[in-house]
Amino acid sequence: MLNIGAETLVLTHDMLAEGVHFIADADPADVAWKLVATNLSDLAAKGAEPLGVLLGFMLGPDDARFADGLEEVLGHYGVPLLGGDTVSGGPPRAYGLTAIGRATHRPVPSRAGARPGDALYVTGPLGTAMMGFEALRDGTGADSTAYRRPMARLAEGQALAPVATAMMDVSDGLLLDAARMARASGATIAIDGARVPLATPERRRQDALRWGDDYELLFTAPEGATLPIPAHRIGTVHPREGAPLLLDGKPLTEADGLGYEHG
Amino acid sequence: MLNIGAETLVLTHDMLAEGVHFIADADPADVAWKLVATNLSDLAAKGAEPLGVLLGFMLGPDDARFADGLEEVLGHYGVPLLGGDTVSGGPPRAYGLTAIGRATHRPVPSRAGARPGDALYVTGPLGTAMMGFEALRDGTGADSTAYRRPMARLAEGQALAPVATAMMDVSDGLLLDAARMARASGATIAIDGARVPLATPERRRQDALRWGDDYELLFTAPEGATLPIPAHRIGTVHPREGAPLLLDGKPLTEADGLGYEHG
Repeated sequence: MLNIGAETLVLTHDMLAEGVHFIADADPADVAWKLVATNLSDLAAKGAEPLGVLLGFMLGPDDARFADGLEEVLGHYGVPLLGGDTVSGGPPRAYGLTAIGRATHRPVPSRAGARPGDALYVTGPLGTAMMGFEALRDGTGADSTAYRRPMARLAEGQALAPVATAMMDVSDGLLLDAARMARASGATIAIDGARVPLATPERRRQDALRWGDDYELLFTAPEGATLPIPAHRIGTVHPREGAPLLLDGKPLTEADGLGYEHG
Repeated sequence: MLNIGAETLVLTHDMLAEGVHFIADADPADVAWKLVATNLSDLAAKGAEPLGVLLGFMLGPDDARFADGLEEVLGHYGVPLLGGDTVSGGPPRAYGLTAIGRATHRPVPSRAGARPGDALYVTGPLGTAMMGFEALRDGTGADSTAYRRPMARLAEGQALAPVATAMMDVSDGLLLDAARMARASGATIAIDGARVPLATPERRRQDALRWGDDYELLFTAPEGATLPIPAHRIGTVHPREGAPLLLDGKPLTEADGLGYEHG
């Protein structure tokens, strides 16, 4: 974050690497979409309005298709490409994106603000990306859009910023990201697994709690606070005692395989 | 560039790729230095004061040494690391850096502002990086600092911004960069080769005019303008006629091999 005159800027830089974040034969247009959307999701979690992006691009065999996807996603969000650089390199290739946003509320929400007694919410159902990934992998013909082209919850993040005590996007799995929020806040977060809204069959609940890439917002707010948008109450913040996470009363740590940890 | 309230931000994103911008056995501390310095040099050419950087980092075998160099260069320039991301990947590896600066003068100088009748200047001698590179390559023991750890002319850029009609840094060779300035400005730039200050023996003059990586500032100013810092007068801007560049009266284009063009 950066204070400029009366404004606070929020800056993010996320990379996507072939073989880590996308497979070699992924549609480059989808890779471009995901690169932008994941960075904008970081801005969403800060309640920031995007002002522009800069792209670090590694030249490859299907760059026109990447450019198509880039144009689509920037058009969708109304965000300008402010600059960037291209290099030859790879495979494996990697792309980097910097997103710049303007904070719409101060203090800017962080993952460190959850307080004992706060209620824990998520903005939407989990497992959409998992179902999309499996549809693609298994060639079922079911819709894979949520996996290929995730959405940044920009409007939701801006609406929630004044009321959220802590906020982050669910990128690496609900349980893992909740544990990170708990550690950053010096608290223990208790999740009621049955209350987590799912986009999957019930039998996949445990998987959906650990799958990432949905980019819903996970946030805390004071118990009883009126929320500006609909959200799902899934837990409560407690004083820190033992593990950072309680799932249906059972203590969990990162060592229990809470989600997706990538290099 | 981005206007925020009463301020104008200058944003740059440059990448360094193994095998293109640095060799595999380069000291990672020097690579980190160069990555930051080249981006800050872009800010210098805009007369901008750096506010911070974000790093896109590809993990590798000697990351502690990279971190050392990063700390040194950020400390040298007093610039904070605001964020970034790391991924596994490579070889070949690539690093990206976004630098954010605050314009100290508006309009912000660009390479497109050279006007017929303007005088052309360079802030310092050319060929320092070339001599450093050759010292390293040939193991002569001569000083290679200028090649390994280039300097961004931040103070010079800020001093010159109010008087320069066009400004850029010499990153890919004086002749090539001057041709780019001429094309962007719709002008022809005439350079008096003998007046270009050199850090090399006289017999290397033609090489020094084509070697990059010195990061001196190349700028134009109205004939007779008082300059706030010492600079070397090396040419004059003419109305565009034929080639973008005249070297000692001889027309040259990019096809003549003016400098270093990388992918």
